Amino acid sequence: MSGLFGGDLQVINLGIGGFAEVITAEGGTAQHLDWRPPASGDTALAGSLAALIGNPTVEAANGLAFERYLESQPVLEGLAVAGEVLPGMGPRHILHAGPPISWEQMAQPVKGAIIGAILLEGWATTHGVAEDLAASGEISFAPNHHHNAVGPMAGVISPSMPVWVVRDANSGNKAYCNLNEGLGKVLRFGANGEDVISRLRWLADSLAPVISVALEKTGGIELKPILAQALHMGDECHNRSMAATLLFLKRMLPALLRLGRAAEDIDRAVGFIAENGHFFLNLSMASCKCMLDGAHGVSASSMVTAMARNGVEFGIRVSGLGDQWFTAEVDAADGLFFAGYSRDDAAPDLGDSAITETAGLGGFAMAAAPAIVQFVGGTAATAINATNEMSQITLGRNMAFTLPPLDFAGAPAGIDIRKVVDTHTAPVINTGIAHRKAGVGQIGAGITRAPMACFELALAALAKAVK
Amino acid sequence: MSGLFGGDLQVINLGIGGFAEVITAEGGTAQHLDWRPPASGDTALAGSLAALIGNPTVEAANGLAFERYLESQPVLEGLAVAGEVLPGMGPRHILHAGPPISWEQMAQPVKGAIIGAILLEGWATTHGVAEDLAASGEISFAPNHHHNAVGPMAGVISPSMPVWVVRDANSGNKAYCNLNEGLGKVLRFGANGEDVISRLRWLADSLAPVISVALEKTGGIELKPILAQALHMGDECHNRSMAATLLFLKRMLPALLRLGRAAEDIDRAVGFIAENGHFFLNLSMASCKCMLDGAHGVSASSMVTAMARNGVEFGIRVSGLGDQWFTAEVDAADGLFFAGYSRDDAAPDLGDSAITETAGLGGFAMAAAPAIVQFVGGTAATAINATNEMSQITLGRNMAFTLPPLDFAGAPAGIDIRKVVDTHTAPVINTGIAHRKAGVGQIGAGITRAPMACFELALAALAKAVK
Repeated sequence: MSGLFGGDLQVINLGIGGFAEVITAEGGTAQHLDWRPPASGDTALAGSLAALIGNPTVEAANGLAFERYLESQPVLEGLAVAGEVLPGMGPRHILHAGPPISWEQMAQPVKGAIIGAILLEGWATTHGVAEDLAASGEISFAPNHHHNAVGPMAGVISPSMPVWVVRDANSGNKAYCNLNEGLGKVLRFGANGEDVISRLRWLADSLAPVISVALEKTGGIELKPILAQALHMGDECHNRSMAATLLFLKRMLPALLRLGRAAEDIDRAVGFIAENGHFFLNLSMASCKCMLDGAHGVSASSMVTAMARNGVEFGIRVSGLGDQWFTAEVDAADGLFFAGYSRDDAAPDLGDSAITETAGLGGFAMAAAPAIVQFVGGTAATAINATNEMSQITLGRNMAFTLPPLDFAGAPAGIDIRKVVDTHTAPVINTGIAHRKAGVGQIGAGITRAPMACFELALAALAKAVK
Repeated sequence: MSGLFGGDLQVINLGIGGFAEVITAEGGTAQHLDWRPPASGDTALAGSLAALIGNPTVEAANGLAFERYLESQPVLEGLAVAGEVLPGMGPRHILHAGPPISWEQMAQPVKGAIIGAILLEGWATTHGVAEDLAASGEISFAPNHHHNAVGPMAGVISPSMPVWVVRDANSGNKAYCNLNEGLGKVLRFGANGEDVISRLRWLADSLAPVISVALEKTGGIELKPILAQALHMGDECHNRSMAATLLFLKRMLPALLRLGRAAEDIDRAVGFIAENGHFFLNLSMASCKCMLDGAHGVSASSMVTAMARNGVEFGIRVSGLGDQWFTAEVDAADGLFFAGYSRDDAAPDLGDSAITETAGLGGFAMAAAPAIVQFVGGTAATAINATNEMSQITLGRNMAFTLPPLDFAGAPAGIDIRKVVDTHTAPVINTGIAHRKAGVGQIGAGITRAPMACFELALAALAKAVK
């Protein structure tokens, strides 16, 4: 004892930081380690963790699921009309982002987008009648994810809309996404004025046919190489897709130039793509959905295969837990707001676009995109730290998506619900921010986190399932 | 004294590292500071430094020169035929990269390119006759820089070649550069076969007219915004210009699509630009030449306004020292070699492209382009360190060229010969590597340093001039 107290005190403090502070305040030396008990001290959850961590069945399942995700080769096959290709989509179906939700509970921007879709479909001619129709029960609402699709923000897909068709060259499974409308007042942020509807008509009547014919000439475009190259050009392929958009345009140009259609149509198509730095986002999303659907449905796997928000709830799906959603209430994202707006104006976080983070892009690949902090806030270190932190909650690295600022380490991918709960580290998500009222549109962008509760609920369910 | 030797020894060691090593070998603690005497102990040079550092005339001159560099607004006006627009270029002139050099002394790749240019001009029809003509004295050779021009690698410009015309919207001064031929066997790396010559003919006869008419429609393109955006997309705008090339193509597309020329010509032009990731390099170079010529000729300024290599010598020009070149022998760059080649095959460093580093791009902006280490060697830290180190030898930062990985700090720019000599820190340059024999072409790329001797010679001259 005299040996211990005779020398200078060297303290390592675990957990509550206050103990270390007392020692340093008295001039002592204390190294504080930010530790908390597993599952934050929730004994039931800690029991689930204990059953699942190191469990050979879960490990084997995750190995298989992650391998399928890595092996997926999403190829852009073409464009099609949603009502004609989305599995199970009926003529009076409207799809939306996130987990299931009823019309009454929907967030305002989603309601705004649905009213816009009803006007686009010609099921009503005024906003009032469209709203009554939406509330009448005559229209079926369902998540995009229930129909192999994804959509950014409100994510609304109605039967006549064109959708990207992306096919996994390995497994053959297909994923779909709507077309990107650009920034500002657009349907996906809840805007539904005449300008929004007429742009959607042009997307369907002119842009989609032009791209569709050009795509036929290319014989399909592999999307992973575009994503990989964009990561070397400052994109994270969620909220920054400038390079990916230009690389896609470059890939399409030879076919577009030899299309034999009206020069005006081609001009406008090329101009629309070139001037919309988010154009490729919807292709990133379809690629990610395609890669993750390949990993879905592996019994006992704790790998997350979807994260999505409907503006009220955040939901996740887990490979080993079938089609069940694990949901929690969602907050508004913190971030940078356009002039005149603040967080008070912001709708809760919204959209299927967190499928990019689920696949190792977006916030998970943020190290590759330091310039994105101009759009979502933070510093260059924020970007590096986000990627490094995400490597603690993922199954491995995707060497198809290398990150130059981290000496070409692969993007961390394959979110493991066990690691999320064990380390109390929620997935980071780069997101756009919609106004909370319908019809206004985008008011900012930011960085947010998935709610821990989704992962805790899923963990408990997996522990039961694996037992 | 007893107080000093009673306690633990705490040593700070300056200069020769061996002293510190002795102490640490004996278990002591020594902090080594890498210090050397000013001008590396050269007393004459130290005298020049003493006269110039803090000299108010030099400071004021540098302030003016740097401001002129910052204020320059290079605008791409069009394409023209070299012999018709380059000031002072005669009908039997051939221009080359770097400081002046005679035919006899020229490096093999430069000789190879000149032979190619003679064949292109139709002054000879065989390589042998062309070589005899070059040696006969009937052709005048001069540096591009003597005719307001720059060219990458061999940098050869002959009278019939098309050149970019870049004009400073502020001062009106113009700068010129030839067109980029792509990678592989190309004239600028000394190749001069039939394929090389026929590509050059196509550049002049088809590509240049197509771009020229399109440029007229655009009414001129500001180049700084493209450079600035490319720095946010992983380019350093010397050895990596993929984003800049795509941004330039995007800017040109509306005009190219409405050109009213044969579709085939437009197809091939667009394809050539889109598939050549170095296409924009020559526009970067003309922009940099334009910005730096604005800063040239300020009496007493110690700012470097050109760095260029002819394959034998490295030369610099300094704003306050008129048209004089300060030269030193140049080595081959170290770097990554294409399969089958090594440093033994490499020609000494070559080209006017170090004008990009002189203007704060290339190696100076390398922090923005971590992916470039795949091309020139090193790690992500190499890229960050290069930029940070260059901030020690520059007059300031160019806030038109912000670097996201350094939290949007401006690129260090305005090389100050005083700081180079005082800190013994030579400018870093990202460069391509040519085979030392004529006709082979590019064999690699790497990172190199300007020779210190150029800066020491210039410093001595400036000390005399300012006296």
